[in-house]
Amino acid sequence: RYYEYMFGHSRRRWGGRPLAAGAELSELQVVIEAPEPGCDSYPHLGSSEAYHLTVTEPVAILKAYEVWGALRGLETFSQLVHEDDYGSFLVNESEINDFPRFAHRGILLDTSRHYLPLKSILTNLDAMAFNKFNVLHWHIVDDQSFPYQSIYFPELSDKGAYSCNLIYTPADIRLVIEYARLRGIRVIPEFDTPGHTQSWGKGQKGLLTPCYNGEQPTGSFGPVNPIWNTTYDFMTKFFKEISSVFPDPYIHLGGDEVDFSCWKSNPEVQEFMKKQSFGTDYAKLESYYIQKILDIVSSYNKGQLVWQEVFDHKAQLQPDTVVQVWMANNYAHELSRVTGAGFSTILAAPWYLDYISYGQDWKKYYSVEPLDFLGSEEQKKLLIGGEACLWGEFVDATNLTPRLWPRASAVGERLWSSRNVTNLQDAYRRLTSHRCRML
Amino acid sequence: RYYEYMFGHSRRRWGGRPLAAGAELSELQVVIEAPEPGCDSYPHLGSSEAYHLTVTEPVAILKAYEVWGALRGLETFSQLVHEDDYGSFLVNESEINDFPRFAHRGILLDTSRHYLPLKSILTNLDAMAFNKFNVLHWHIVDDQSFPYQSIYFPELSDKGAYSCNLIYTPADIRLVIEYARLRGIRVIPEFDTPGHTQSWGKGQKGLLTPCYNGEQPTGSFGPVNPIWNTTYDFMTKFFKEISSVFPDPYIHLGGDEVDFSCWKSNPEVQEFMKKQSFGTDYAKLESYYIQKILDIVSSYNKGQLVWQEVFDHKAQLQPDTVVQVWMANNYAHELSRVTGAGFSTILAAPWYLDYISYGQDWKKYYSVEPLDFLGSEEQKKLLIGGEACLWGEFVDATNLTPRLWPRASAVGERLWSSRNVTNLQDAYRRLTSHRCRML
Repeated sequence: RYYEYMFGHSRRRWGGRPLAAGAELSELQVVIEAPEPGCDSYPHLGSSEAYHLTVTEPVAILKAYEVWGALRGLETFSQLVHEDDYGSFLVNESEINDFPRFAHRGILLDTSRHYLPLKSILTNLDAMAFNKFNVLHWHIVDDQSFPYQSIYFPELSDKGAYSCNLIYTPADIRLVIEYARLRGIRVIPEFDTPGHTQSWGKGQKGLLTPCYNGEQPTGSFGPVNPIWNTTYDFMTKFFKEISSVFPDPYIHLGGDEVDFSCWKSNPEVQEFMKKQSFGTDYAKLESYYIQKILDIVSSYNKGQLVWQEVFDHKAQLQPDTVVQVWMANNYAHELSRVTGAGFSTILAAPWYLDYISYGQDWKKYYSVEPLDFLGSEEQKKLLIGGEACLWGEFVDATNLTPRLWPRASAVGERLWSSRNVTNLQDAYRRLTSHRCRML
Repeated sequence: RYYEYMFGHSRRRWGGRPLAAGAELSELQVVIEAPEPGCDSYPHLGSSEAYHLTVTEPVAILKAYEVWGALRGLETFSQLVHEDDYGSFLVNESEINDFPRFAHRGILLDTSRHYLPLKSILTNLDAMAFNKFNVLHWHIVDDQSFPYQSIYFPELSDKGAYSCNLIYTPADIRLVIEYARLRGIRVIPEFDTPGHTQSWGKGQKGLLTPCYNGEQPTGSFGPVNPIWNTTYDFMTKFFKEISSVFPDPYIHLGGDEVDFSCWKSNPEVQEFMKKQSFGTDYAKLESYYIQKILDIVSSYNKGQLVWQEVFDHKAQLQPDTVVQVWMANNYAHELSRVTGAGFSTILAAPWYLDYISYGQDWKKYYSVEPLDFLGSEEQKKLLIGGEACLWGEFVDATNLTPRLWPRASAVGERLWSSRNVTNLQDAYRRLTSHRCRML
């Protein structure tokens, strides 16, 4: 039924190569078994990516329950086809029953430290599809710039972007989401608050906390101001927009690395702390803020992801909030704690790919075993996946692709393949040919 | 006299921008003072790159003794021109008297570990011109592959290249040399022997030393065989070709990292060692070989560069042989020793740019002071320059440019500017805008 769509799609990605020399294999039949295969919807955490591929003469058969599995199977099939020295296309007879080990396999791109042109993002989505990643974690804004063009609050990017050209318009966002969808990739936007928000303050006066030196405002600003109702009025409207612009059922709310010094310096905040009986524990103020944001976002029927500090600082999370573990120091212990408290978790800590070093560091990424933490079987099930993060301090369009790939391929295989697929020599061989395939 | 050539050349590189808004500056006059300005010849170690640039209304004047200085001045002038917010091109009134601190300012590219397509090499020559580098040290062959297509010995690349496409034909080489010449850049080829030569052995049977296990040949091969006359017959013919293909008065002969274990295992070599009374000092055998190669190359009126081991192992060098210091460990001491023995030297040790790390490592490269070694004024004069080296183990066309630039710009400024230009904040500001200019 979906043969034309699927086949056209896959052929485009193979650059028009015939599937194989006519005599041997004339057709690839794609069968999608679900009554609702999902062709017109978006992939989500519970989507089925399993597929069964049988390559025999004269017809190869790809069976999947949902269209997302068919996409993964087409990717595999395209990688089975190889060209011999005489220009013939060959594919071995094979029978493959394949499914992912983890449901959330993400790449984090950061478009705030450096703006990434649309083309870089789309190229990266292609590379993600080659490697069966299924989540683009779009860290779209941060201290440095606010390239997201808001419909309700256009001043945010007018004043907060690096320049009026370096923004993502609503049309750009739709394009990214649709391009990703056609490759079975979810787009989860991150709007990180209350820290990492310097760029928000430029276009939204009164949002950030004024810092004080004694009784005098210094003129500089700290995290989002958690004590004013106007803050929550703004966030209510803002996240209403985000909830409708991004179709994914999850939004990442950040919550990492909040610097308390500005809050501490501000007399009004001090007053508020007293009134709330927070004492001098500013983590409580942070949790107060985050819980309000979580409530706002929940009210739009969106699930939330947060960085680990939100859990560490004892905010009251929603039962389905996903905690992302990023601190490299003893992350296994953190995974135990988070899952022990009954929350789902995503592991990013060992896969900060912006940290470069000389040589084949992919082996380090490949050798990580995400489930190597203390916990019950139930806890292990709460680890739903991982992400390779390419923070943007030293990354822009000039170096993104060669810096991220094929290093992230090692993470991709770790998150897709069985636990026992760990042989480095085998992986090296596969990675080498896979790199050539991606060029 | 050379106005048209120079001006046309420079305009091409500025992408056709007008020099400046007509009203203010209508013309850049280029005056070359030497009776033989060098337009039809090649730049060399003694070329004059000094220039004097006066920017005033209505005519800017660029004076240089040779065409190479005029090229540097045009580069500077093009970098003085900037575009304002309204699209006008502006240039400040300036008077600049500029000349390089060191005569040899090189970039090493390695086309053996990974083949680099011609386009990558040419792009890199453009970047070198932007940064006033004047030597492409072309490490063209090594163990991994032999992409140089020899006229006398075509089998070397037929069998030693990664594939029959991944070679540099004589026409390719000419193109690189001419492209470099038009930018005032010398091309010094390196044919590294007797080690680093595995790929030579594939197309030239009998050139490498057969390794032994006891009395049995193992089937594998070591460095070039230094005991047979056929070796020197081959090298005589080979370097005759190289001397005519590459116009630069210098050839780099390598000589680094010779592994003696295969020589030691070979009974014929052991016999030869006895006959020559070398005892068990295989460094003497290495020097025996290198001296013969130096003599061959000298006979073609070519100067030589060698890696530091050739000096360390006490080979009898030609008086004008240039010793390149690459070992990071205590390179200042090595500079003292080499110059103390009266040899010219080039510093590469602190500038191995293939070693990557997280963050702004350019500061480390920038902060090197090449003359910080013990020695007399005469010795200091023997340090004629330096090179930033981008070895190719993990570098190919996909990542060469963003990995090398703008990090190498820091080395470029160190080698061009005065010793006292060391302020990191200033350099950061300049480097940032220079990076944008290069994009």
